[in-house]
Amino acid sequence: MVQKKIRVTVWNEFRHEKSHEAVRQVYPNGMHETIRHALAAQADMQVRTATLDEPEHGLTETVLKETDVLTWWGHMAHGEVQDAIVDRVQKRVLEGMGLIVLHSGHFSKIFRRMLGTNCSLKWREVGEKERLWVIEPSHPIAQGLGEYFELPHEEMYGERFDVPTPDKVVFASWFEGGEVFRSGCCWERGFGKVFYFRPGHETYPTYHDATVQQVLANAVRWAAPAYYGTHPCPNTKPLETIHSIDPATGKAGVKQ
Amino acid sequence: MVQKKIRVTVWNEFRHEKSHEAVRQVYPNGMHETIRHALAAQADMQVRTATLDEPEHGLTETVLKETDVLTWWGHMAHGEVQDAIVDRVQKRVLEGMGLIVLHSGHFSKIFRRMLGTNCSLKWREVGEKERLWVIEPSHPIAQGLGEYFELPHEEMYGERFDVPTPDKVVFASWFEGGEVFRSGCCWERGFGKVFYFRPGHETYPTYHDATVQQVLANAVRWAAPAYYGTHPCPNTKPLETIHSIDPATGKAGVKQ
Amino acid sequence: MVQKKIRVTVWNEFRHEKSHEAVRQVYPNGMHETIRHALAAQADMQVRTATLDEPEHGLTETVLKETDVLTWWGHMAHGEVQDAIVDRVQKRVLEGMGLIVLHSGHFSKIFRRMLGTNCSLKWREVGEKERLWVIEPSHPIAQGLGEYFELPHEEMYGERFDVPTPDKVVFASWFEGGEVFRSGCCWERGFGKVFYFRPGHETYPTYHDATVQQVLANAVRWAAPAYYGTHPCPNTKPLETIHSIDPATGKAGVKQ
Amino acid sequence: MVQKKIRVTVWNEFRHEKSHEAVRQVYPNGMHETIRHALAAQADMQVRTATLDEPEHGLTETVLKETDVLTWWGHMAHGEVQDAIVDRVQKRVLEGMGLIVLHSGHFSKIFRRMLGTNCSLKWREVGEKERLWVIEPSHPIAQGLGEYFELPHEEMYGERFDVPTPDKVVFASWFEGGEVFRSGCCWERGFGKVFYFRPGHETYPTYHDATVQQVLANAVRWAAPAYYGTHPCPNTKPLETIHSIDPATGKAGVKQ
Repeated sequence: MVQKKIRVTVWNEFRHEKSHEAVRQVYPNGMHETIRHALAAQADMQVRTATLDEPEHGLTETVLKETDVLTWWGHMAHGEVQDAIVDRVQKRVLEGMGLIVLHSGHFSKIFRRMLGTNCSLKWREVGEKERLWVIEPSHPIAQGLGEYFELPHEEMYGERFDVPTPDKVVFASWFEGGEVFRSGCCWERGFGKVFYFRPGHETYPTYHDATVQQVLANAVRWAAPAYYGTHPCPNTKPLETIHSIDPATGKAGVKQ
Repeated sequence: MVQKKIRVTVWNEFRHEKSHEAVRQVYPNGMHETIRHALAAQADMQVRTATLDEPEHGLTETVLKETDVLTWWGHMAHGEVQDAIVDRVQKRVLEGMGLIVLHSGHFSKIFRRMLGTNCSLKWREVGEKERLWVIEPSHPIAQGLGEYFELPHEEMYGERFDVPTPDKVVFASWFEGGEVFRSGCCWERGFGKVFYFRPGHETYPTYHDATVQQVLANAVRWAAPAYYGTHPCPNTKPLETIHSIDPATGKAGVKQ
Repeated sequence: MVQKKIRVTVWNEFRHEKSHEAVRQVYPNGMHETIRHALAAQADMQVRTATLDEPEHGLTETVLKETDVLTWWGHMAHGEVQDAIVDRVQKRVLEGMGLIVLHSGHFSKIFRRMLGTNCSLKWREVGEKERLWVIEPSHPIAQGLGEYFELPHEEMYGERFDVPTPDKVVFASWFEGGEVFRSGCCWERGFGKVFYFRPGHETYPTYHDATVQQVLANAVRWAAPAYYGTHPCPNTKPLETIHSIDPATGKAGVKQ
Repeated sequence: MVQKKIRVTVWNEFRHEKSHEAVRQVYPNGMHETIRHALAAQADMQVRTATLDEPEHGLTETVLKETDVLTWWGHMAHGEVQDAIVDRVQKRVLEGMGLIVLHSGHFSKIFRRMLGTNCSLKWREVGEKERLWVIEPSHPIAQGLGEYFELPHEEMYGERFDVPTPDKVVFASWFEGGEVFRSGCCWERGFGKVFYFRPGHETYPTYHDATVQQVLANAVRWAAPAYYGTHPCPNTKPLETIHSIDPATGKAGVKQ
């Protein structure tokens, strides 16, 4: 039996890498290329990329139809993402596509759309140490990790993180400067799974980190759908005989 | 000590009552007046109404600022609700205001905005019997109710109801025609609470029912906020000395 | 690559089948044999059985160590299950083993132990129709099923079901006599998954039903652990330098 | 209208205070007296205490019947708590009594009974700083608190905390030595509410802290039941006419 590969689309705003020299040094081809490369090394995944400045942000109906899991990194240009494309991505997630939102993507239109909240948080950029504790070792996204892993330099995100209570918090971060954060959060919306992963500031080589790459691969496998479906709102015939007389019509419902 | 009253705004689309004679007979002044009257009989509530065709749909900044709990009934004109007003209501819910969505409000813009899903379901209009089982007798919304209550004639809504898994399902419905439904669902979004209550088809006298009125009053008390707050995204000083040298600046963070 | 099979142990009280002729006619070799046969037909499962009257109820340390998923049916002799065996099963679940509790197993020691509640419910034996609605079509346990499935004759179980709010309710039942029930409930405890499946009264051929067998196979796959672990309570060295002076010792903690 | 006071019973193992001079200096009359004093200062609470070495551990049927919320601190003598008393407390929680488990009470029989898990964690005693972040500012248990509060010296508890995923995590701790912890966790079991609050090592004056006392008072109000009930398992008459012929009896069920 040939196992079908998980079709991943790595989406990146891809602006910082063009406008900030410090970012270009870390991600010369854009962070989407670093992530693509890491995931494409997994035998069960086939990976493409898409970026903001492509037509339809690279997320045509066809691309989304061929995407099982979409990863999303954005920051300085959230407002430039067209609402029609956000509608399209939301629809696809509700039908089953997995969505993995990365770092500053917490303020993306699509993340806020899926969750219904502001998704705000505290933040600080001083390159401090972050330690991510694995609080759900048996969760698929934690497979192969130890009790914790560290990133020597990261932007800090601190609570309160304004999101609906996650179904599972897989990682919780300790920051050198004194804050904590729910850094790996799982939700389901419609038939799709949503994962938020906190690390990934553009000036640090976070997505080059082997453990972070393991988390991303695990998250793709967790979010990959076994089921796709739509959400109709059908007028339905009764399955049982209805004896009540409808006062609106003076007739009893009938089993059909 | 004078206990402050809960300030309730009962919102109604108020179109069916004007255009359908059968609905006008059940709710001559609009169903918002029936609900207002029921809630205003509670000693701890002060109630006003708002409707679609008023300026700003009756939901000005001032009205929302003075509203602790908003109830919402809409059906034939969901699309006419302005997005700017939906934004305003969402913002207020995230700051703490309670939101009670009734029956066909499942397809309202505000409900779908808060939940991020389609909120679709199955339906049938033959005036069949609905029995609502109280599956969380200790929940505030179930206080004073028995093991179940019945509505002799209602529209049927059947599962799958496309919503995020509720924090609590207080009521589950049995329908004469053979379906079931999660008829009383609780969520939290930001600092606000959201309750969905299924019954309330416009051609049946559901909101005249004493038990339904008890549920509405209970739900208002449950959803009334003890806390209001905003969701800023502040740049934050560290609380601890940071020893890591930021590679982006070549400097250590400092405790301030 | 050889995929390891899921090792299933089907546990049955196996008393009704010996003492009640009506039950023996439905399950001549015991219902564990019917379930074993159904699961053993799955290419990815290897199945054994265990029953109450075997030494250690058939659940020796060795058997449990070689079990990935345990299914449990009991009714008239819950009290005869030794507490030491319940301790052993609980420990194994917390380490990762899946547990599938069937029908009258709701009152078993192991189910109440895992959940901490009474697990009580309403019931009635008149052979009425049960219709199970699939309210989470994308859940692994619902794979391959339609919108609902029916059992022509079953014992009724009705709400309130006294269990902690499930993480997911996959099935909700409609009963001919007017009740509803959360008939497929998921929880996690420690590193193990727990599923409760309502149908399976001993006088009806429920476990011969092809759809029910599909649910059982799906549930085994869902509950099969990818991870086993223990839960130590270790005294831990600090990962950071501690500057606070411990008033109890007059010394600062040290990083080691 | 006279508002009835919340009846609180503060339970303490009361052994460390007798056997360890360092503990006696912090809590000369036992930590239960410190907690009792703090709660009794609240106008809406009446408070008594109970300790391990009293007959029936001070938790007679009468005492429990008159208790709306029970707080629990134990450590060195968990094993001496009689199982019959644990049964009694569990039964009362399931009927509605609130249970607040403190610090080393994580390993008490009653906490493990209610949750079904080991409740293990990492720990370290070097008197380090703990900072508790309020991650649910709108939760009743967080009322009146700021964004965080600090304890200058505490025992460290670190994740993984082996408990079922809480309904809400109100507080998350940052520890000087590098760990994090879910320090304020809410669950419901039966009709009762359970809260776990992490701080409270016996050698530090944690329960003398004004903010901690505020948390305890808030938690008592949150856990106080509005509803008491039992959990019967009744044989139930049908509410609808049953047309199915029971193959076990050859008769149709009847509506009664």
